[in-house]
Amino acid sequence: MEIALSPLALPFPELPAIEGVTLRVARARYKNWDRCDLTYAELAEGTGVAGVFTKSACASSEVEMGREQVKQGRARALVVNAGNSNAFTGYRGREAVESIMAQVAGHLGCAPSEVFVSSTGVIGVPLPKDKAHEGVAAALGAPPCNWEDAARAISTTDTFPKGASTSAIVDGRTVNLVGIIKGSGMIAPDMATMLGYIFTDAAVAPAFLQLLLEQANRQTFSCITVDGDTSTSDTVLAFATGKAGNAALTGFDDAGADAFAAALTDLCRQLAQMVVRDGEGANKFITISVSGAASDDSARRIGLTIANSPLVKTAIAGEDANWGRVVMAVGKAGEPADRDRLSIAFGGVWAARDGLPCADYDEAPVAAHLKGQEVEIAVDLGIGSGRATVWTCDLTHGYIAINADYRS
Amino acid sequence: MEIALSPLALPFPELPAIEGVTLRVARARYKNWDRCDLTYAELAEGTGVAGVFTKSACASSEVEMGREQVKQGRARALVVNAGNSNAFTGYRGREAVESIMAQVAGHLGCAPSEVFVSSTGVIGVPLPKDKAHEGVAAALGAPPCNWEDAARAISTTDTFPKGASTSAIVDGRTVNLVGIIKGSGMIAPDMATMLGYIFTDAAVAPAFLQLLLEQANRQTFSCITVDGDTSTSDTVLAFATGKAGNAALTGFDDAGADAFAAALTDLCRQLAQMVVRDGEGANKFITISVSGAASDDSARRIGLTIANSPLVKTAIAGEDANWGRVVMAVGKAGEPADRDRLSIAFGGVWAARDGLPCADYDEAPVAAHLKGQEVEIAVDLGIGSGRATVWTCDLTHGYIAINADYRS
Repeated sequence: MEIALSPLALPFPELPAIEGVTLRVARARYKNWDRCDLTYAELAEGTGVAGVFTKSACASSEVEMGREQVKQGRARALVVNAGNSNAFTGYRGREAVESIMAQVAGHLGCAPSEVFVSSTGVIGVPLPKDKAHEGVAAALGAPPCNWEDAARAISTTDTFPKGASTSAIVDGRTVNLVGIIKGSGMIAPDMATMLGYIFTDAAVAPAFLQLLLEQANRQTFSCITVDGDTSTSDTVLAFATGKAGNAALTGFDDAGADAFAAALTDLCRQLAQMVVRDGEGANKFITISVSGAASDDSARRIGLTIANSPLVKTAIAGEDANWGRVVMAVGKAGEPADRDRLSIAFGGVWAARDGLPCADYDEAPVAAHLKGQEVEIAVDLGIGSGRATVWTCDLTHGYIAINADYRS
Repeated sequence: MEIALSPLALPFPELPAIEGVTLRVARARYKNWDRCDLTYAELAEGTGVAGVFTKSACASSEVEMGREQVKQGRARALVVNAGNSNAFTGYRGREAVESIMAQVAGHLGCAPSEVFVSSTGVIGVPLPKDKAHEGVAAALGAPPCNWEDAARAISTTDTFPKGASTSAIVDGRTVNLVGIIKGSGMIAPDMATMLGYIFTDAAVAPAFLQLLLEQANRQTFSCITVDGDTSTSDTVLAFATGKAGNAALTGFDDAGADAFAAALTDLCRQLAQMVVRDGEGANKFITISVSGAASDDSARRIGLTIANSPLVKTAIAGEDANWGRVVMAVGKAGEPADRDRLSIAFGGVWAARDGLPCADYDEAPVAAHLKGQEVEIAVDLGIGSGRATVWTCDLTHGYIAINADYRS
């Protein structure tokens, strides 16, 4: 089945080179296709690394090993396999990852633990070691490529390649950040896998980079959902080559640390929103802003409960300002809420205030808002100062077509 | 929009009369329709009552009041309004309920708190007091009706009326239990509302009846899901008239208590499964059996996570034995699990064992099983002795059509 380009797709932007990062792609032919499906990023000596990973209790070997590797804080290379997630493959899957790490480490003369591996695609089939070996060899001998080539090569069911950049002034120098990401949902028999990679020429101590990435993740990647289903392979890695020459950032007291943190969060938000824009079957990009909650975490959980509600998502697909379904979702979130203080707005127009439908509610501007591609839902709990914003897409016949009609 | 009869529908069964229960229905015309939409059940003096209610933080006035009323343990009447859920209507909604309670209490000469009220249908519109008053007056003067009439009158978007019965020997006497239920999902702008009513002629002390109902609920109503969305009005009430003449059951040491408990649980399971069979757009009835979990509660939560996964539900709709999606759902459940001990079967055929795909897995019988209307998924966690069974339906274009294409 051909999946049509998402109506919410964005063109691939111009992205700057990051000193200390060299990208190459190759054909490992993990599936019966004629496209680059192995991505190799070589990183300058001294590159720091941080990572956040899926919380799945059934995570892949790549994730299990990556969680350990980031603790050392140093990276020299990244290998991304597309077409086979190597998940649920036991010891054989682990051997395949170790084999790739050893091959690249031998080439670079580094420790195997400095080679990071990700895989995305079909599950339950061990990554074929021979194809991986030949693919890595081909990538090591390939000419350097650009960001868009790499963004395409890490993709599986994505309908458009995804990349973004930001910059910040740190220690009097401009540092650049570039990210690429893949993810859209799932298509039988593939696992939805959000894999994101961020590269910066800034010098950042790995422990501080880890703290900043976790903080950015809480406000960005942890605030998106397409269908509430969590992959066994979700991974975001951040690499800092240090080539910009700034004094390494080690904490928030350092000059430029706040600017770098803001740029990193902005980059993560751009990338996260692109995944939502490629959500399976998505026709509408939905922003849900929750305020007045007991805490920021509570606001985020309420926002995600609304964002994951099939009834809310189908109402938006049907361009129906069904605020009753939002009430329902708030009620089931398991978070502090008071029915008689709850207020709900669509596109800035309040439909219900303090637990009652608004007497002067005018549905005409709301109906017009819902016909657009960008839909805004605001919820005020009226009980505290916690707030969060989450992003999702609508639930359409396209989602069912992609996930039910297509057979593995 | 006409909603077609569910392909999983069951014919309405023969149900015995319950002594001490008189049913009547009337047209309150809560919506612009020509059908009975107000149900009145008169209960003999001395009837005990128990109830379980939605955990929604935005519950309706009916639910808030019902939670208090059941603590008194006594009931003389039940009134069910269909077409208006009276949810999210603030003090005006509460006044409408109090008005109905006063009217019926005046007629029966009982306390208003012995009159239970439920409402289901559109939200955000206070139940019209005048229509309710006329409807109740009409019902009080109407001839008695049968179970099927009552099951139809409490329904909103259900495609078939739902009722069931069981019996048990208690204290040397046969006691009968009959239940009716409504619920199927939601249709804009109505709230999905599962309302269930159980009537028995057994004598059961209210506190013990409450304990038994909660126990049955944990294994039945709490083990079904259509779309994971929780109504603001979900209610199950059990009424025991005591007319069978047995010595009142007060605890598990009483003769017949176990038999009555088993019959009650069986009745609840029948009713719960009927709601799944009327799930919006459902083509397949799915039974998910989880074993080897850390505890029974953990098994139930894992089962419900699988049952609520859009990717699992669409895979079953597509008749695809996609066990990778089951792995994914287990992984995201947030419950103890070990990827390398996990086993998954469809229709009794193991696809994966101890964290690896089965080498001798034969997909032919599984494919045949998935073409049927009844689908069985078994998951063994391999880490404990906790077990649970949950029931759900598939996620189809029919669900999207009902919830997105139809506009309020």
